[in-house]
Amino acid sequence: MARRIGKYTLEMENSPVIEEFAAVVGKKEGEGPLKNYFDKVFQDTSLGQSSWEKAESQLQLEAVEHVLRKANLDASEINYIFAGDLLNQCTSSTFGLMKLEIPFLGQYGACSTMAQTLSMASVMVDSGAAKRSIAVTSSHFCSAERQFRFPLGYGGQRAPTAQWTATGSGAIVVSGSGSGPQIKHVTIGRITDLGVKDQTNMGAAMAPAAARTMKDFLADTNTTPDDYDMILTGDLGEIGKKLLQELLLKDGIVLSDNYNDCGLMIYNKEEQDVHAGGSGCGCSASVLCSVILDKMRKKELKNILFMATGALMSLTSAQQGENIPGIAHLVHIES
Amino acid sequence: MARRIGKYTLEMENSPVIEEFAAVVGKKEGEGPLKNYFDKVFQDTSLGQSSWEKAESQLQLEAVEHVLRKANLDASEINYIFAGDLLNQCTSSTFGLMKLEIPFLGQYGACSTMAQTLSMASVMVDSGAAKRSIAVTSSHFCSAERQFRFPLGYGGQRAPTAQWTATGSGAIVVSGSGSGPQIKHVTIGRITDLGVKDQTNMGAAMAPAAARTMKDFLADTNTTPDDYDMILTGDLGEIGKKLLQELLLKDGIVLSDNYNDCGLMIYNKEEQDVHAGGSGCGCSASVLCSVILDKMRKKELKNILFMATGALMSLTSAQQGENIPGIAHLVHIES
Repeated sequence: MARRIGKYTLEMENSPVIEEFAAVVGKKEGEGPLKNYFDKVFQDTSLGQSSWEKAESQLQLEAVEHVLRKANLDASEINYIFAGDLLNQCTSSTFGLMKLEIPFLGQYGACSTMAQTLSMASVMVDSGAAKRSIAVTSSHFCSAERQFRFPLGYGGQRAPTAQWTATGSGAIVVSGSGSGPQIKHVTIGRITDLGVKDQTNMGAAMAPAAARTMKDFLADTNTTPDDYDMILTGDLGEIGKKLLQELLLKDGIVLSDNYNDCGLMIYNKEEQDVHAGGSGCGCSASVLCSVILDKMRKKELKNILFMATGALMSLTSAQQGENIPGIAHLVHIES
Repeated sequence: MARRIGKYTLEMENSPVIEEFAAVVGKKEGEGPLKNYFDKVFQDTSLGQSSWEKAESQLQLEAVEHVLRKANLDASEINYIFAGDLLNQCTSSTFGLMKLEIPFLGQYGACSTMAQTLSMASVMVDSGAAKRSIAVTSSHFCSAERQFRFPLGYGGQRAPTAQWTATGSGAIVVSGSGSGPQIKHVTIGRITDLGVKDQTNMGAAMAPAAARTMKDFLADTNTTPDDYDMILTGDLGEIGKKLLQELLLKDGIVLSDNYNDCGLMIYNKEEQDVHAGGSGCGCSASVLCSVILDKMRKKELKNILFMATGALMSLTSAQQGENIPGIAHLVHIES
């Protein structure tokens, strides 16, 4: 069972194992630099469904079906599924995963959801409350655009600071036994609001929360960024990444060459016209559940921090003039 | 740490304690039969805020501030807060609880949220991952009506099967030590869809999920409804309650005099014009966190099952013609 160290960090005592992982993405993501790492690229991003919301549900189901198949597991062997997404009332997850009949715990952490679901799945396994849990999340460019911004047909102009919601889903089976990368620590974030209101600059809204969680974790574990092969945020994009580095520098914490952001890895910025980078729950999920965990399994990466960040706003809160608070959860993974 | 018994149930090994609880409600709820049990009744259901959404955020904050005050605890003594609500992107919780600066884990279970947050808070405490966690949820009639149904000023006619979203919030401090009612078992539900599409009859949509979770729990623990002082669902309302009884009867399980539903307890059906009863995350939360836990503390109730039920739909899913799947989570509490 997990042991509290410092003020905000949980140390896993039985090192839950990432038994298997899978990532499925849309056409645009399949044309980016990570194209060879995904389990499946859907050239038709509707996935043959009659609405974008149903397409996203199907995408999330595909990620889970892929991970179960790769692990040679039946859904009945999974004790809990922790799932969430950006759609109102998390319907991508509920409608997508219903047929699996796995005990379901809906999570809401906006784009921090992959780190949140992975944290919860790990705690359940570490404590013995589950033999196996699944962590999954998704996002879809088309369902997110029309829910949060404009109908697709409107062809709205995008701000240079805006990020592109990735069409993708990532799923992980966390297990109490077996081999694979292991979850070592989890730091759950606090909601942080430094007053950013600009909906077209989510990176700036989320960077303060990311800085806080990173400081919490480093203080609790008495480590520095140099102690890790890779520090991965998701998804601050170009603006948020720089802001996080600036904010941490004020406390003498240097994020340098071993730091990257999922939103900057999933697309080719020069060719794919995504402005400040990728975003959406499915961005960090599909990057983690493809190239990153693949490299960990091959021991090309041995010791990483995965910190997913979320902007805790709704269309209604924005219309009512509220700020955009952020949150960031961190998972320390070793192989 | 929790031990799995049967197929779907967790048995707590360290019996996490309900150290304190609090419920705050709106004017209408404060005029109902439970009026003397609530910690605070807001005669002005706007709570002095400029929107109904902000009012709901404030309501949830009030519940947590009340429970902290009653327990004589500072927010910094709480390791995790598990919170969720019905609003898009769970903004009642995120905006309401932000200032407390407690590590935040957003939960989405629609009206099953009180059982979900209480389950998660209990597992975290039982496993030693937290010394204390808070479980909280809320709903507000006015924010729910305008998000899911009609603008308030429209004065839409309500169907006889419709339930009334309660304005209320309930919060619980779960602790690893101390005295009070104890959490004994938790059963996390599976999403269940028997094809109900009628948005004005949520009780019917949720009853099948409730029947399934109840059957899971009774089978896993090898007990019968007669083994408990009280079985409490929330919120099936009049229609859903009867349907649950009918569904269980098919399997020879009889829910009789010791069974009630929070949606039928919070209002006076004859005088308060709520049709099929109360609903909303805040209904079961405020009933549990007032009269029920009060009676448990006084040992008037010693052994209860609290099973909250949720309808996993959104306005979008309904408009796209989808069914309304349900979910139900069960918590067994002893004093």
